[in-house]
Formats: sequence, structure tokens, C-alpha cells
Amino acid sequence: MADNRPMSTHAPSSPDTLSYEQAGVNYDLIDPLKIAAQRAAAATGAHLGGHGFAEVPASRGESAYVVDVGPFYLASIVECLGTKTLVADEMSKLTGKSFYAGIAQDTIAMAINDLITVGATPLVVQAYWAAGGSDWFGDKLRAQALVEGWKKACDTCQVAWGGGETPALAGIVEEGRIDLAASCTGLINPKTRLSVGDKLGAGDAIVLLASSGIHANGLSLARKLVERLPQGYLTEIAPGLSYGEALLAPTVLYSPVTEALFKAGIQPHYCANITGHGWRKLLRHPGQFTYRIHTVPPVTPVLKFIQEQAKQDDREAYSTLNMGAGFALFVPAADAERTVEVAKACGIEAWVAGSLEEGPKQLLIEPLNIRFSDDDLQLR
Amino acid sequence: MADNRPMSTHAPSSPDTLSYEQAGVNYDLIDPLKIAAQRAAAATGAHLGGHGFAEVPASRGESAYVVDVGPFYLASIVECLGTKTLVADEMSKLTGKSFYAGIAQDTIAMAINDLITVGATPLVVQAYWAAGGSDWFGDKLRAQALVEGWKKACDTCQVAWGGGETPALAGIVEEGRIDLAASCTGLINPKTRLSVGDKLGAGDAIVLLASSGIHANGLSLARKLVERLPQGYLTEIAPGLSYGEALLAPTVLYSPVTEALFKAGIQPHYCANITGHGWRKLLRHPGQFTYRIHTVPPVTPVLKFIQEQAKQDDREAYSTLNMGAGFALFVPAADAERTVEVAKACGIEAWVAGSLEEGPKQLLIEPLNIRFSDDDLQLR
Repeated sequence: MADNRPMSTHAPSSPDTLSYEQAGVNYDLIDPLKIAAQRAAAATGAHLGGHGFAEVPASRGESAYVVDVGPFYLASIVECLGTKTLVADEMSKLTGKSFYAGIAQDTIAMAINDLITVGATPLVVQAYWAAGGSDWFGDKLRAQALVEGWKKACDTCQVAWGGGETPALAGIVEEGRIDLAASCTGLINPKTRLSVGDKLGAGDAIVLLASSGIHANGLSLARKLVERLPQGYLTEIAPGLSYGEALLAPTVLYSPVTEALFKAGIQPHYCANITGHGWRKLLRHPGQFTYRIHTVPPVTPVLKFIQEQAKQDDREAYSTLNMGAGFALFVPAADAERTVEVAKACGIEAWVAGSLEEGPKQLLIEPLNIRFSDDDLQLR
Repeated sequence: MADNRPMSTHAPSSPDTLSYEQAGVNYDLIDPLKIAAQRAAAATGAHLGGHGFAEVPASRGESAYVVDVGPFYLASIVECLGTKTLVADEMSKLTGKSFYAGIAQDTIAMAINDLITVGATPLVVQAYWAAGGSDWFGDKLRAQALVEGWKKACDTCQVAWGGGETPALAGIVEEGRIDLAASCTGLINPKTRLSVGDKLGAGDAIVLLASSGIHANGLSLARKLVERLPQGYLTEIAPGLSYGEALLAPTVLYSPVTEALFKAGIQPHYCANITGHGWRKLLRHPGQFTYRIHTVPPVTPVLKFIQEQAKQDDREAYSTLNMGAGFALFVPAADAERTVEVAKACGIEAWVAGSLEEGPKQLLIEPLNIRFSDDDLQLR
């Protein structure tokens, strides 16, 4: 099952630190189901043999599921936006503007940015827009923003919007709300583009791609903080920039970078989409490596603000939020600088942030004196 | 966009007839969005050219979106279960049993039964289980039933359960509820299996496959009716069979039939998944044909009961509910009887119900003296 949410494996740093548990998400209740589902799902992989195909076992536990269909690999995924719409709805009330164009991009980014980690070119996106009632679709400004933002994100990623589902689910989805998700299907073509971890090795460079803000992970915490702010979402966190607007910066779409890397002849050895577990996601690969970070990207103002308001130390902040880095590419050292150039040519800031070494499984963020070990990330 | 919901194009037959509008679903509000989304989506199909592929334009407006990827066609879809969980939740309170194994099958059926209409073999299913809070997953009996039912449906359809998403969406999904959906990806292989309508012609036979009950369309109406029943969901509709249990009969999975037809050398010229528009779905194909029905399947007790309680005449009932037929196969006349045999060998009752003729676009259900015209179904 997907895992783009924070784990609850370490204690908050001080009594008034706001953690995810306090923000109302209890993963201890979800995890037994997740484990049962993973086991049941794994047992179904053999069905593909009856059709002349086979799963790529290493993709179980990765961000997208991969099937070998002969001439290429097929990758697929479904991803939920989460609760970012609650911020958009609140900000809409406060400002009269619609933020659903950005929300559409966020939703597509959830699916696309996971799908590309395995080396896939995203081809088709399907929309899942489940509203609390038919009324939701009656707000033309908002509905039009959702449609236009969805199309624009498809244009950016060069994917076809295949269709989707727009149910009105009164009694299941709350009145006035919408549950947004996207499914995405892609191909790994040529098959040498597959990156499910077997290529990763000591000496590889870690290139980090800039995030635009909180993206769509950490929103429960961000919303909870509003209760502590006298001005709420309208609190200025930088001149002319409200907390709410900053939170709603749409998630960066990273597939233009991975496609440009392929055209430039650069083959990532592994990728990690930095979502709910923050920088612990850099430890995602099952192998035993030490990940040494010598350069950290600048922290976007909204993340700095959340860290301060939630009274999180750096270790807690980097274990939960993306802290300026939305996606990690693990590439051959010789390709590191060129990877940064390719990303910048796509308009996305990037940094050669560190490298892999033989050694115990750990992430060392040296400029901040932070160490995360394998115990801090149990994804599989 | 998907269309598995009834249209609101004709008036109820009598003042106390219960229609969909009265059951709280207003499609007039959804349709402008749907049209805008369809236009925007259509404009993105050209992106596939940049990857060396092309969309199958005829699949726009069909139940699944199809892309030509060279050696085969790729089909994908995302589908929502709808509000059937509200019946399961109510029945669980009344009986102490969990009905979520059947609900899981329903959810997968929504995606699988649409995907196969274009000739695809379903390969991968992804689970979308968005709960109103982490607590939902704490009910172990229910969670386990959902997992087991999901796996069993994957086994029946010989698809791999790739993974999925289990978000806790407090504030969006109502407390104690779950929003269920499934995405599905498949291949049309060999490419001759593609059935998006170009093969359909006068003389083709209409074979109907049995439904198990209401499936997952018409539930808003079915739930509304409960208010008129003194015994509610526990009303006996047949000896030992309550209304609630009958409603919860899981949707039939039809992919074993379409796969068996391929193995038997039978190529459907077209398929229609009979969902929200009831038998009007038989008019789905864009061509001008008269569909003449000489045989109607027996009506399952729960559908008969709904028709009676909602005081619907036959025309209204057949325009909304599946009335015993869950899936239509349009096959060469010479293959009609063998198609029925293949379905029966899969354990699914089937009937040669009629045939296509040159003539104005209309559906004539002769045994019931019902006529539906093109005006009764505007899907595209």
C-alpha cells in the first residue's frame, strides 16, 4: 500500500511541540490493516503469469507497482491528495479567490511524482473527484479552476487526461467538501530505465530537487497550527505572503526533469519522492548504505514558519516535512552536476547534496548534525 | 468522464413515484463540469504523440480510455463504488455482521466491468480506501473483510493487486465512513480484441449476462425507500431474505466471461456495462441501430421490490435499474448461443435477448412494450 504519510516512531521533542498524533492522525490503527493488505496483495502477483506477464517483485514496497509486459514495463498507481482542500476552502472564504487550480496540480503531482520514481514515463492520468453533494459542482468558478488546473498539470507532464469519475457522495463525503485523487499509468521504455533499486551503490551522488513549499504532506499539522495564530491563515509569514497562500503553493511536478534526464542520457540509479516522512524518505532503499549530506537546500518560508510555530527542533522538522527538497535523485557521481543543470533547465532548482557510502544504514545531515537510522523509517 | 449514474431526462411516472432527483442527486449541477472536463481532457490526448504513442479516439466516451502503445493497446480507468457502503454500515448495526467482503467485490467490479468493455484483459487493480478517520481501520472484523474480499475478487478476475492508498481524511470523509474506489489497468492483446464500436453491425446478437441484484447503481433510490418501510432494511422481500441483505449481494465480476470468450475464439463486437442508466445503456454505441429485445431475463427479487415500492412503471424501472441484466455483449449472430454457453460455464446465467437491425436509434423491449430512443440517453 502507499505510504505517503508520516510514521509515528519517535517522540515529540518538547511538551508543547505539535506532533502528528496530536494533529489527529493515528497510524497505529492503520498499520495492521496495511500489513494485512500488503500480504494479500503480494499473493495476487502470480495471477499475471496466467496472462503471460510477470510482476517486478522489487516494485512491491516501492512507490509504484511495476509489471513486465514484454517489450516494456507497465507502472500504475492511485494517490490521494489528502486534506489540502480544507486549507483551500478556508482561504476561499477569507479571500473570495479559488485555489482549486493549484489543488488540481497538487493532486496530479501526488500520482506523477510517485510513478516516476520507478523510471516510468507517465502516460495517462484519471481524475477522481468525489464531492459531498451535487452542489459542490454548482460553484462554477471553483469547478472551472479545478478543470483548468488539472489540464495545465497534464500539459506540464505531457500526459493524456483519460477521463475519470465525478461522483456526488452525500453521506460519505462531507457536505461542501471534495475528496480528490488521481490514478496514473505509465510505461518504462526502454526497459533499462527501470529504477527499483538494484543499480544503487556506494559513490552515487544525491541530487535534491527544490520543493515549492509544504506540497501536500504535513497539512494536518499545518492546519492544527492555525488554532495558535490570532490571524489564522491570514498571518503574514513574509511581506505580502499569508500563511494560507504559502501553504497553497502547488506541489512541483517532477516528471519534466526525469524525462529530460533520459533525453540527456542520464540514468538515475534510484529516486525518492520526499513526502510524508520528510527526509527519512532518503532511507527508502532497502540496501545498507550511509547517506551523507553536505549541502541542505534553503528552507522555504512556510516550512520555516511551521517549524517555529510547532516548536520542532531540526531533527523533528526534517523527519516530517520536505524542508525545501521535494524529490531526490540518486545518480552516478559523474552525472551529478549535469543532473543539476538539467533540472535547472526545467526551471527547478537543484543541488548536489551529498553521496552514498558503504556503511550502516543511516542518513547523516552534517550541516545540521542530524542522524536518522533505519529504525526511523519502517516502510515495508 | 465516467457516466455510471442515471440521467435526469424524463419525468417520474406518477406523483408518488420516487425518482433519482427526489433521492437527492442533481445531475444538472454536475453536467456542465463534466462537459468542461471532457473538452479539456480531449485536448490532452495529443501529448501521447510526444512519447511515440497515440490515443484511440473512439475510446473517448467509452467506459475506459485506450492508448495505442505499439504491440498492444493500454486501457485504464478509475471508478468509485458510490454509496453502497451506507447500506453495509446500516446492516452491520442491525445484524452485527460485516458486509465489507462483498463491498470490496462491488468496488473492484465497478472498475473491472467497465475496463473489459473495450476488450481489455484487466491486469492490475489499485485500492483507494479513504476513511473518515484512523478509527475506521480499528474495527478489525470489518477491515479484515475488506482485505479478504478485495483479494478474492482479484483472484476471481486473475488480476494483480498492485497496492493503493489508505488515507484517513477527517474533515473530508464523514466520521465512521469510507470512500471506496478502484483503479484498473489492462492490455488489449492481441490488438484485434479492441472493441470500441467499429465492429458493431446490423444482425449482431444481444447477449445479456445476469446481474446478482442491484449491483452498485440505484443505491440512493434504494436507501431512500427504506424510509417508507416500517421494518426498514430488515423487511423480508423473500422468505429469509431481508431487503438489506438482498441489496448487498455483491456485483457480478464479468471479466472471467470476456476472457473465456477470447479463449473460445469469440470476439464481441461491442460491450455495455449496464450500470446507472439501466437498460438505456444498451443504446450506448454512437451508431444508428434499432436494438430489438425479444427475451428479458427474470427480474431479481430486490429489483422487483424496489420497482413496486417506488411505484415505478416498467419503463422507469428499466431506465434506471439493471432489471436482471448486468452486462450486454454484442456478438456475431452465429456466436450467440455459444456465448451463452461460455458464460454459463463461468457460472453466470445468460440469454440471447435480441438483435440489431438497421433503423432509427432505439431500443425496443418487446415483451414489455417499452421503447427508448436516443433522446433517453445522452452520454457523450
